[in-house]
Amino acid sequence: MLEKVDVRFLKSPEEVGLENPVFIEGLPGIGHVGKLVADHLVNELKAEKVVEIYSHYFPPQVMVLEDGTIRMPKNEVYAWKSDGNGTDLLILVGDFQSISNEGHFELVNAYIDVAKKFSARMIYTLGGYGVGKLVEEPYVIGAANSPEIVEELKSYGVKFEPGEPGGGIIGASGLLLGVSELEGIPAACLMGVTSGYMVDPKSAKVVLDVLCKMLSLEVSVEALEERAKEMEKIIAQIKEMQEMAVQQWKSDEDLRYFR
Amino acid sequence: MLEKVDVRFLKSPEEVGLENPVFIEGLPGIGHVGKLVADHLVNELKAEKVVEIYSHYFPPQVMVLEDGTIRMPKNEVYAWKSDGNGTDLLILVGDFQSISNEGHFELVNAYIDVAKKFSARMIYTLGGYGVGKLVEEPYVIGAANSPEIVEELKSYGVKFEPGEPGGGIIGASGLLLGVSELEGIPAACLMGVTSGYMVDPKSAKVVLDVLCKMLSLEVSVEALEERAKEMEKIIAQIKEMQEMAVQQWKSDEDLRYFR
Amino acid sequence: MLEKVDVRFLKSPEEVGLENPVFIEGLPGIGHVGKLVADHLVNELKAEKVVEIYSHYFPPQVMVLEDGTIRMPKNEVYAWKSDGNGTDLLILVGDFQSISNEGHFELVNAYIDVAKKFSARMIYTLGGYGVGKLVEEPYVIGAANSPEIVEELKSYGVKFEPGEPGGGIIGASGLLLGVSELEGIPAACLMGVTSGYMVDPKSAKVVLDVLCKMLSLEVSVEALEERAKEMEKIIAQIKEMQEMAVQQWKSDEDLRYFR
Amino acid sequence: MLEKVDVRFLKSPEEVGLENPVFIEGLPGIGHVGKLVADHLVNELKAEKVVEIYSHYFPPQVMVLEDGTIRMPKNEVYAWKSDGNGTDLLILVGDFQSISNEGHFELVNAYIDVAKKFSARMIYTLGGYGVGKLVEEPYVIGAANSPEIVEELKSYGVKFEPGEPGGGIIGASGLLLGVSELEGIPAACLMGVTSGYMVDPKSAKVVLDVLCKMLSLEVSVEALEERAKEMEKIIAQIKEMQEMAVQQWKSDEDLRYFR
Repeated sequence: MLEKVDVRFLKSPEEVGLENPVFIEGLPGIGHVGKLVADHLVNELKAEKVVEIYSHYFPPQVMVLEDGTIRMPKNEVYAWKSDGNGTDLLILVGDFQSISNEGHFELVNAYIDVAKKFSARMIYTLGGYGVGKLVEEPYVIGAANSPEIVEELKSYGVKFEPGEPGGGIIGASGLLLGVSELEGIPAACLMGVTSGYMVDPKSAKVVLDVLCKMLSLEVSVEALEERAKEMEKIIAQIKEMQEMAVQQWKSDEDLRYFR
Repeated sequence: MLEKVDVRFLKSPEEVGLENPVFIEGLPGIGHVGKLVADHLVNELKAEKVVEIYSHYFPPQVMVLEDGTIRMPKNEVYAWKSDGNGTDLLILVGDFQSISNEGHFELVNAYIDVAKKFSARMIYTLGGYGVGKLVEEPYVIGAANSPEIVEELKSYGVKFEPGEPGGGIIGASGLLLGVSELEGIPAACLMGVTSGYMVDPKSAKVVLDVLCKMLSLEVSVEALEERAKEMEKIIAQIKEMQEMAVQQWKSDEDLRYFR
Repeated sequence: MLEKVDVRFLKSPEEVGLENPVFIEGLPGIGHVGKLVADHLVNELKAEKVVEIYSHYFPPQVMVLEDGTIRMPKNEVYAWKSDGNGTDLLILVGDFQSISNEGHFELVNAYIDVAKKFSARMIYTLGGYGVGKLVEEPYVIGAANSPEIVEELKSYGVKFEPGEPGGGIIGASGLLLGVSELEGIPAACLMGVTSGYMVDPKSAKVVLDVLCKMLSLEVSVEALEERAKEMEKIIAQIKEMQEMAVQQWKSDEDLRYFR
Repeated sequence: MLEKVDVRFLKSPEEVGLENPVFIEGLPGIGHVGKLVADHLVNELKAEKVVEIYSHYFPPQVMVLEDGTIRMPKNEVYAWKSDGNGTDLLILVGDFQSISNEGHFELVNAYIDVAKKFSARMIYTLGGYGVGKLVEEPYVIGAANSPEIVEELKSYGVKFEPGEPGGGIIGASGLLLGVSELEGIPAACLMGVTSGYMVDPKSAKVVLDVLCKMLSLEVSVEALEERAKEMEKIIAQIKEMQEMAVQQWKSDEDLRYFR
């Protein structure tokens, strides 16, 4: 039985034993900047999966892997313990955001709940800010749920320009900031400026740079370009597949009414 | 954790100590007439915020302010105590109405609940009535949940013409009248005739005039035009931003299906 | 506070004292045949309103009446006691069917619950069967939840032709038959053949004729034509109004995103 | 009263007395391959209906049968006891999949619950894999929730090619595999390659062949072609009817707003 928002702890927060970790969100979104950075962190740091999240708000389907086995759509939280004098991390990555408006709120409630169970002291949400044209020199723009954090981000080179990001921040990256504020958890959003047309490793790199500086992390960025290429390929492939599958499903819809 | 309709009292009704206040609703709507009047009242009277309302029925996003901090979409109720021989007020203002049909009913239930907790004796809902062309001499048309109130409104110059407003009253301004009737609370809707094409301070002024006369309020109308201009500017800006943000989000939607 | 499906008994079934009444449904639908017949019965028999039904599944609006007062969208159940040797009746009439798929099921559950509380022994649902062209000599086609009722209906001249009504019966008229079957309540649907282009008093008349014969009712049909004309006028008017109101509301939708 | 997902046991699992049966799903879908196979099995084996499933996630309507009686949309589970040294079966067949995204998850939860109540040891979901062109020699492609099952399926001639089925498996056939995995139940999907343009008995035959070999079933395939022809006829008829009914209902929608 799958709950509407089904959060499964593979290990209890006590077992994992993080010390006031920083919670980082990197779900699919504009230019996949956030996802690219977060997936990269999980891989480079060899972080450990501690939570799986399934939901009725994800698409009603399974993915079929290369070897013929299937995988439920899911989001995951990984934990990483620093070697003592650094910052412990929780990293939220995954396949989907909500496919319904109201689902966004319910999922964000669940993410916040996980952060609180691990006593997270701060939340960073990662994303892209699409400008609709190629960006030669990407940079990072920010938003935060307190003026103090805005000032701190500025000191790390994050740009704040009135009217950007236009229209606010849609989805988990935005709502996490807002609900965090209501829960008294400091939170910031780092957005890499990007065209928005493709998976953008350059934009991801500048976001990763800021994040590493702020958290005193040392992470190689070499694999980032490689990872982006692979992600691009997978996305192209899956997009084609997805379209095909949905077309089949739709074109056949009338047939389903019968007997 | 954010409830589906999350009503947060900043002060208890007892602390606020209003005496059978009149509840005024001015949420975004046609020509923003209602919102303009209600926002104006809150500002001119320096009313005190006593309730915040968040909801899964608002858009799943946060707004980014000029200084880089964010704000959750929310509606708010302000309280104003008259100096003894006037009418105490509760004023509902805010960012959004519901984005789903059913959400309208749940939010209106919450508004009525707030009104009842403060022992409101009467509800006024404010709005615009769009006629699709420029209106030289705006006037106020009305609707109410009892014939007695209709008569009273007429005595203040509110017009009632059969077949107007055509199609009934959609959204919070309408439902508040209907649910109030079922709850035994007298309620009326004041609609300023307006083109419907822009934020209309002229129309707002005639609504404000009627309201002030009925409630023996003294409120300067000078700032109204100024406020409308500013509102218009902000709306234009935000509309552009909103479109940009939604486009980005949508154009990128396929990309979100992957891994 | 308005429940999702809010059934309000104005009188308890015991007070009303019907004896195993027949429950008749005539909500808005094709050619408004069902509504026309049911409204006519309520008026001619001077039936007494005993239940009001409000719902979040109706449109989020109120109607404004000629005198400036408002009315919540609602459905109603009327009771009529025969003078002893006839059949007692419960008649469901009203403004709307559900505006969401799932709402249909929840509302039909509520209708069945009312029928059971009054110990209804049989349910008739009334509707139109649109053939897309003018019908010179309308007749009644039927469907029922048992073969015995089919036979009985045939004996009253109701026609049963394989493949009619094509595609089954959508909405309350259909679901009431189906859920009744699961609840062990005999039920039949009477559909007047009609063009589907307008309110059709001729079609309503043949349905009323069958119904009266089956229930040994004596009801004048004179007012039916008059009532249809009036209904047609009101519908034309309201349609125009509705369109105007929805257009206003929609055209203004972007404006609602702001501040 | 009809629950959102209303599972009605006609017999308790104990009464039925299956021994760790295999659960087979064959609901409407691409080329109706799955439905054709499952309906065929139910008929050839003379399996016994043990569960009926109704739901608010099915279309809000009833079907009218040839004799004028009606039928609620429903799915059904049939039980078949082998003669001792074979495999007992549970077969899920029916009219519809969910008409909403979230309904898919709730219905699949219910199917899994039935499977568990009968102590099913394995789940097979059946479907079609549409390639958009005529298929001379159909074959079966597969997916499973463990590598061991993939290997076993290969030994029965089921094909596994990377990137097929593209886009994953949508609907009950896919979700059943995924949720089964989370519940620890082995599960596989068998998809007959098909054009996707029509009910495809050839494709159904190859799926049936594999299934029979795997389960050591002996089932005549003669009636399959006949059944497909009939199904095609019924579908064509119902499609036409369905369109007519929906058109009527829609074209009349404005009329429903009134009084």
